[in-house]
Amino acid sequence: MPTSLQKWSAEFLGTFWLTLGGCGSAVLAAAFPQLGIGFVGVSLAFGLTVLTGAYALGPISGGHFNPAVSVGLALGGRFKASELPGYVVAQVLGAIAAAGVLYLIATGKPGADIGGFATNGYGEHSPGGYGLMAAVVTEVVLTAIFLIVILGATAKRAASGFGGLAIGLCLTLIHLISIPVTNTSVNPARSTGPALFGPAYALSELWVFWAAPIAGALLGAAIYRALLSDD
Amino acid sequence: MPTSLQKWSAEFLGTFWLTLGGCGSAVLAAAFPQLGIGFVGVSLAFGLTVLTGAYALGPISGGHFNPAVSVGLALGGRFKASELPGYVVAQVLGAIAAAGVLYLIATGKPGADIGGFATNGYGEHSPGGYGLMAAVVTEVVLTAIFLIVILGATAKRAASGFGGLAIGLCLTLIHLISIPVTNTSVNPARSTGPALFGPAYALSELWVFWAAPIAGALLGAAIYRALLSDD
Amino acid sequence: MPTSLQKWSAEFLGTFWLTLGGCGSAVLAAAFPQLGIGFVGVSLAFGLTVLTGAYALGPISGGHFNPAVSVGLALGGRFKASELPGYVVAQVLGAIAAAGVLYLIATGKPGADIGGFATNGYGEHSPGGYGLMAAVVTEVVLTAIFLIVILGATAKRAASGFGGLAIGLCLTLIHLISIPVTNTSVNPARSTGPALFGPAYALSELWVFWAAPIAGALLGAAIYRALLSDD
Amino acid sequence: MPTSLQKWSAEFLGTFWLTLGGCGSAVLAAAFPQLGIGFVGVSLAFGLTVLTGAYALGPISGGHFNPAVSVGLALGGRFKASELPGYVVAQVLGAIAAAGVLYLIATGKPGADIGGFATNGYGEHSPGGYGLMAAVVTEVVLTAIFLIVILGATAKRAASGFGGLAIGLCLTLIHLISIPVTNTSVNPARSTGPALFGPAYALSELWVFWAAPIAGALLGAAIYRALLSDD
Repeated sequence: MPTSLQKWSAEFLGTFWLTLGGCGSAVLAAAFPQLGIGFVGVSLAFGLTVLTGAYALGPISGGHFNPAVSVGLALGGRFKASELPGYVVAQVLGAIAAAGVLYLIATGKPGADIGGFATNGYGEHSPGGYGLMAAVVTEVVLTAIFLIVILGATAKRAASGFGGLAIGLCLTLIHLISIPVTNTSVNPARSTGPALFGPAYALSELWVFWAAPIAGALLGAAIYRALLSDD
Repeated sequence: MPTSLQKWSAEFLGTFWLTLGGCGSAVLAAAFPQLGIGFVGVSLAFGLTVLTGAYALGPISGGHFNPAVSVGLALGGRFKASELPGYVVAQVLGAIAAAGVLYLIATGKPGADIGGFATNGYGEHSPGGYGLMAAVVTEVVLTAIFLIVILGATAKRAASGFGGLAIGLCLTLIHLISIPVTNTSVNPARSTGPALFGPAYALSELWVFWAAPIAGALLGAAIYRALLSDD
Repeated sequence: MPTSLQKWSAEFLGTFWLTLGGCGSAVLAAAFPQLGIGFVGVSLAFGLTVLTGAYALGPISGGHFNPAVSVGLALGGRFKASELPGYVVAQVLGAIAAAGVLYLIATGKPGADIGGFATNGYGEHSPGGYGLMAAVVTEVVLTAIFLIVILGATAKRAASGFGGLAIGLCLTLIHLISIPVTNTSVNPARSTGPALFGPAYALSELWVFWAAPIAGALLGAAIYRALLSDD
Repeated sequence: MPTSLQKWSAEFLGTFWLTLGGCGSAVLAAAFPQLGIGFVGVSLAFGLTVLTGAYALGPISGGHFNPAVSVGLALGGRFKASELPGYVVAQVLGAIAAAGVLYLIATGKPGADIGGFATNGYGEHSPGGYGLMAAVVTEVVLTAIFLIVILGATAKRAASGFGGLAIGLCLTLIHLISIPVTNTSVNPARSTGPALFGPAYALSELWVFWAAPIAGALLGAAIYRALLSDD
């Protein structure tokens, strides 16, 4: 049985990796002239942080790497609510550390410009100019489905071992849909790290990317329990 | 054993996800300036909706998410024909709900233009201008092979657990080939949802995207039974 | 035990799928304006034809879909040489049928232009202008490694079930490297189908795409037997 | 039990494949006009070399294909330090052989220009102009996480068989983040091969791509042992 320190370390490192990998690919590589990876590459990167983290660290902590996921799993009966505070603190600290390292790298060149620094936003700070209503609907619905996929793909009846693949690629899919709307959060920790180093507006809009993903996670877990559970 | 309500819920949610994820990526992200995901990203998105849905919901309902697949599986002896009506209704309702949510998001910005809204079409409504004959051949042949892959990858002799991977990525492959021809259906439910919210021509061409995928699914299941079955 | 007819059917259908999917994505979608899938999409498509075919049809025929693979597996001791003629005939017929269907689709629009029709070539018919020496080295070396991956990933000591994933994605990788050189063959059947419908030069250069992949397959199988086998 | 010769052969071939596939896709296909694979394709190619090599050759040698990985695994207690010299020599020779074959192919056309030949660099030789500090931080941090993923995904408690998938796609992810910074090494052998055939500056900067990945691998293995190990 992993100790609490091991679980917190795993959640810290996994969320560090999610934020460094996902936001790092966006900041450093998305818009590189001619050869840049675009939203497809950023979507793949976010998903692969979770896929790799799930196989490497999942056996230790469950591989949440996301406060909304931890909250939803608690409602879904897969995670003890008493462990929530430790997990969420580790996740947020991991994301902040990652944003700090990314800031160090991104500014390590002459004339560096960190741009939006992969922060989330709506309205004029949405990549495609989508308003608050579209942002909230997007984040709530996508996080809800994310939780349904997580709960379903790790249920007892599910194919053993494939959970990390399905959940990681689900995050890729979520980004393929929604980067233009909110730059995609579905993860309050991932939103918090870059907001501390990025443009000032990011902090003032950060509440949306705590509220909507958590609401979505609760919605998804509730739907799963009501309609799909095998318990 | 899942109840009928659980199965219908799983098919509703899975087809909701297929339509929201696949068509959502197309409408919101495909043609984003400079960084858009293009047909590669849309193909990946459609496939990942099925991959994630198969691992999360497949153990409940079988993970069809597609009336043509349900029909083909019935002919292939893997699904009770008496369950067809419930499944197809759930699938079509899921796709319509998804198209509604997508419409809400896509119009949630100033000056929104939903364009073709990811509807399927032929002739002047084919992305590449392909005519009805090319559209029908494409939809029939690709759905036939889709069914062969589904039946083969979930046969008793197949590698356990890998069905969701193979079937999801088969849908990605089908889109990589055929988006230019018909915008890719192979799924009457996926065609129906957007047609209700998109441009008027989509409804008048919708019959093709019921008839051709179902004909293809029957053809594929017949080929499988005649030449490949291990029963 | 599958019958010979079942094996031939599986090889026919698998090579049909490889050629229709891989060459179809190239002809129909690679260069679509703005949103085209490019060489990345074509590479993914070729690999996914084999990944999906391997999981669906591999349990029936072994999932070769390629005369060079059949020859290499015979040398590697994994396939009876007496079965070679039937397999190769089925593969070539499948590729020809696929090229015919693709021709039907690709010409099904006003002003259709099939271009190179995804044929293989060297010198002025190499996408990047590479000469015969570079073409031969590329095809021999990549087919040799393809066979090493196939033999290794399906060995008794290998992780069970993952062969189709590794082998399919190996073909994706091979295309990511070598489309600019020869348009990538490593498969004489895949080269033969389109050559019958494409520009006249394709048939006159076709011998290279029989000789080099088969030489490479024999080389790879010989290296595997000499240095890596666990028999 | 594989013999030493079998292990060295597997490491030679795997590192040959990593370098030929990853650097080959970069040199031959990344910047192909209109249809080139860009950094997304190169990232995918590097990852797939490891994924395919891991499933095919991993059961023989462990599938390191990278001196930094071998060093980190030795510190992590998964590899005998006495085997290090043989592994590292095989890896470096494999990478050099691959660079030679790639040079032969890349120069096999009229007016060939090998450009940077996929070498690693910093400052004016960084694709995005990142300085030495950014380069070192990037290589150290990414190699550290690579080792954590490798150690975690192959631990006894990890899902059986999925290691090759997670580790291969981790290398894809690392490239999605860091090609703009250093052209991505995290592998001294991969850096050495092309440096012998590429522009002169590559050799003079090569020490960074031995020192930083090895330091990162030791850091990652130390973190894993201290905080995550189940021994």
